[in-house]
Amino acid sequence: MTGVTARRRGRPPRAESGDTRDRILTAAREEFSERGYEKTSVRGIAKAAGVDSALVHHYFGTKEQVFEAAVEVAFAPALDAPDAVADGPLDEVGERLARFVLGVWENPTTRKPLLAIVRSAVNNETAAAVFRGLVVSQLLRRVAARLDLPDAELRVELAAAQLVGCAMLRYVIRVEPLASADLEAIIARVAPVVQGHLTGP
Amino acid sequence: MTGVTARRRGRPPRAESGDTRDRILTAAREEFSERGYEKTSVRGIAKAAGVDSALVHHYFGTKEQVFEAAVEVAFAPALDAPDAVADGPLDEVGERLARFVLGVWENPTTRKPLLAIVRSAVNNETAAAVFRGLVVSQLLRRVAARLDLPDAELRVELAAAQLVGCAMLRYVIRVEPLASADLEAIIARVAPVVQGHLTGP
Repeated sequence: MTGVTARRRGRPPRAESGDTRDRILTAAREEFSERGYEKTSVRGIAKAAGVDSALVHHYFGTKEQVFEAAVEVAFAPALDAPDAVADGPLDEVGERLARFVLGVWENPTTRKPLLAIVRSAVNNETAAAVFRGLVVSQLLRRVAARLDLPDAELRVELAAAQLVGCAMLRYVIRVEPLASADLEAIIARVAPVVQGHLTGP
Repeated sequence: MTGVTARRRGRPPRAESGDTRDRILTAAREEFSERGYEKTSVRGIAKAAGVDSALVHHYFGTKEQVFEAAVEVAFAPALDAPDAVADGPLDEVGERLARFVLGVWENPTTRKPLLAIVRSAVNNETAAAVFRGLVVSQLLRRVAARLDLPDAELRVELAAAQLVGCAMLRYVIRVEPLASADLEAIIARVAPVVQGHLTGP
């Protein structure tokens, strides 16, 4: 048992650099969500992570690339979800999509990076492009492919609009009574709308 | 005729101060939409309007109050709309609300202040409170009052969520194909959803 513990503790050099990379990403996520894309600097991220700016550039490249990596890592668990959302019975895809999007917002771990993306994308074209790339191409396009309809992409975007608007009013602007309403009550009202956009006439 | 022209040109002091007030508000709108709430300062607004900061404080008070006034003026034409949206046949209120909200976004004159509100409200709690006060209490509460249902406010907010999400994806993040889709095609798909939230079972 002691031997195993010792092996676990003695990290190889690659794991060490992995730690630094993770520390930079954690700092980047904090900085981007606190300040938004524009006010965040590579220098500020480096300082928060306790490393030299050159190391941030070495691992990630430009600020845009740090942002993309920070967002991608935050969504690593969620990025497996598109398959789970797109697969399964087509007549329940609306509820799956609603549960997925609102679930990511309900989860305190993913809410912060999401707020960072929204704040940044609303204020900055570079960040908006990252949002379009990640959210739209990773999630929405996969659901659209499943629908196999000529107007699938527009359908998916209007469905997403219902969920994006819910997230804005509930989690970002915090309009009452929506902000305090029971999640299941919201899903019950919103899932049929999402389903209607996706597979309705 | 000459006398009339002369009278028109010889503005009384009150009209003169009205011009200054308007100039400050125009400058404020520009500053808030360019920089967002946090990065905008009363000093910057004063400079852009070519007046002293003290005059801005004299007319409006705090930065929050300047913001509120700038937003309110921008929406002066739209603020008559809640009655027009709430009144009229109840089975067409969904289409009226959809046309109103998307129409304000389509209009280049009102799009800029709207972007200013959204950018500011997403990043700043004070601006979010102004948004909740103006948009929610002026527009949504009036529509809710018309519905006369126990869950009217939640219904109106979920309806608004569909429109807010459309506006975000179409005008702010500019996701294709939604960003370039024909407005009437969007209204045709979105109005029944809004109506369903408002008056559906």
